[in-house]
Amino acid sequence: MIKTVFFNKDENCLELIDQTLLPLKEVIIKCHTEQDVAKNIIGMQVRGAPAIGVTAAYGVYLGLINPKNLEKNLHIEELLENICDLLTGTRPTAVNLFYAVNRVRNAILNLHTGDLDKAAKKALEEANAIYEEDLAMCRAIGKYGQELIGDSETWLTHCNAGALATAGYGTALGVFRAAKEAGKNIKIVADETRPLLQGARLTAWELMKDGFDVTVIADNMAGGLIRNDLVQGVIVGADRITAKGFVANKIGTYSLAVLCKYNGVPFYVAAPTSTFDMSIKYDDEIVIEQRNPDEITKFGGVQVAPDGVKVYNPAFDVTPPELITGIITDKGIIEPIYAETIPQVLGLK
Amino acid sequence: MIKTVFFNKDENCLELIDQTLLPLKEVIIKCHTEQDVAKNIIGMQVRGAPAIGVTAAYGVYLGLINPKNLEKNLHIEELLENICDLLTGTRPTAVNLFYAVNRVRNAILNLHTGDLDKAAKKALEEANAIYEEDLAMCRAIGKYGQELIGDSETWLTHCNAGALATAGYGTALGVFRAAKEAGKNIKIVADETRPLLQGARLTAWELMKDGFDVTVIADNMAGGLIRNDLVQGVIVGADRITAKGFVANKIGTYSLAVLCKYNGVPFYVAAPTSTFDMSIKYDDEIVIEQRNPDEITKFGGVQVAPDGVKVYNPAFDVTPPELITGIITDKGIIEPIYAETIPQVLGLK
Repeated sequence: MIKTVFFNKDENCLELIDQTLLPLKEVIIKCHTEQDVAKNIIGMQVRGAPAIGVTAAYGVYLGLINPKNLEKNLHIEELLENICDLLTGTRPTAVNLFYAVNRVRNAILNLHTGDLDKAAKKALEEANAIYEEDLAMCRAIGKYGQELIGDSETWLTHCNAGALATAGYGTALGVFRAAKEAGKNIKIVADETRPLLQGARLTAWELMKDGFDVTVIADNMAGGLIRNDLVQGVIVGADRITAKGFVANKIGTYSLAVLCKYNGVPFYVAAPTSTFDMSIKYDDEIVIEQRNPDEITKFGGVQVAPDGVKVYNPAFDVTPPELITGIITDKGIIEPIYAETIPQVLGLK
Repeated sequence: MIKTVFFNKDENCLELIDQTLLPLKEVIIKCHTEQDVAKNIIGMQVRGAPAIGVTAAYGVYLGLINPKNLEKNLHIEELLENICDLLTGTRPTAVNLFYAVNRVRNAILNLHTGDLDKAAKKALEEANAIYEEDLAMCRAIGKYGQELIGDSETWLTHCNAGALATAGYGTALGVFRAAKEAGKNIKIVADETRPLLQGARLTAWELMKDGFDVTVIADNMAGGLIRNDLVQGVIVGADRITAKGFVANKIGTYSLAVLCKYNGVPFYVAAPTSTFDMSIKYDDEIVIEQRNPDEITKFGGVQVAPDGVKVYNPAFDVTPPELITGIITDKGIIEPIYAETIPQVLGLK
């Protein structure tokens, strides 16, 4: 199994595979402090909404055992707030980050203890639980989703909603893995996913490692494949889903959804129920992270655009519910995406 | 003026600006033979359907004065066939290439001469005429097209249908230039255009050189801009247009057209009448060039995808007429794109 996020008990540290170096080098980063964790989330050494959540949960634990924090003699609530603020400030769009950090914080606060050792022990337990649940959720998503895929079909995916975006197994790619485990012979087309090429670098790498037939395309080539009936469906992940079914996901997702709608091709989103943010309804309530212009103007350190050109570089876009055939969750498939069906499947109604 | 293609009378050679090195270096390539011309079309040192046509026309002339050809003592028809086959074999999709080469060939054949000097003189005259007509056609396209653009609007373009894609001035970018010359204050968004980044490298460069406000985006970001009403329209070029209005253009054009249709944003194609191929009706009659997988798996020499991954790399896609608001030609705007209106505007009915 690909160890995207792995807690090393012997060394009491969190191990991350450096996703910025894949597919050329497999380097394991060891995080010993909450600063290490925050730095690697910002730098996208770890990325993918569920993986960020799991990583940040362990970050709370590492903050509570960080000798530099202990020296400060802060009250436990204050220390916890500092740690959680640092971690939740890393990436503004993924809801799993807030979910995981808040869950660990609440578990600690519910102890009503001033004992840091006890708090740290609880943080690790909770982080481990989030890790295990993430794996179980991906398996459940795979189980439900693979029913949608027929034998000998070709499906397309965008960015990386795979083992590398989760504790392991993946959401969108988990569906493909489950289809393969069910004996279906399928082919995958991976959008390269500019600017950071998570599709070409990560999705292609992890699917090839598992023996899939993968073809990489530039993002602007998906339209021609969809128009010419060369893909039977599209599955993507999600960074946040509102109560009314608006899906924030990697930039480019919306275009794929429109192309599918126009051509009558199924467009599915695969996401654990922790991706739903029931506190917001519409897309205008989602903060869209703007990233560094260098991601567009440079490539592998090589400048590709003229000096001083303006750049627009949003990390995400929002796909409205009318473009989504269904959302594949660990609790079943929500189809069609109505404001009523989401609370039902999530057990909120 | 940007000298994309320029015949140097003093040195009797064709000069091309090396578009693979822009925007970082402005290097002029001198072509002395038809082989030089073919090599630079294949290598995309010169690209853009009209520019390729003009370049190839001069290539016929250079073939007829090439000392190595003269040594062979071939019959003029045979020599001409060899030269034209070499030139038309360089890129299969752009119709302007076939148009320009055939026009020079026919002009020579109509002389009914066995005198190579006379044939060469005719070739140069005809190539010069194609060059001048290309410039005039771009100006006419600009004149008609700029009427569509309002003051203070933002328009998006894909790839490079600019001065660098023509003898000068440009088709889609010619429309923007004409709008600016008419005193309109407009902003341009340029898709970077993977895999070869003609938008980031060439469109941004030539528009900045002319003082435009240009913003570069990754191709997959256009959808979000269109959805959020941040662009008032899209204009692209064309490599070939069929009698029924199917448009072959740089890969990614189709996706833009679907995004515009779905969001009610105007989508225009700007192309000289030489881009129409009235011999074919539908898109399945257009050969789509597949290019080297390295264009996807490597970037500036840096490998970005796993070893041995499969790649699909078509240079073009086809946009059907129902997605096109209008085609801006040098003879007027064809709108809507019906099988009847194309022959009318082209003066064939």
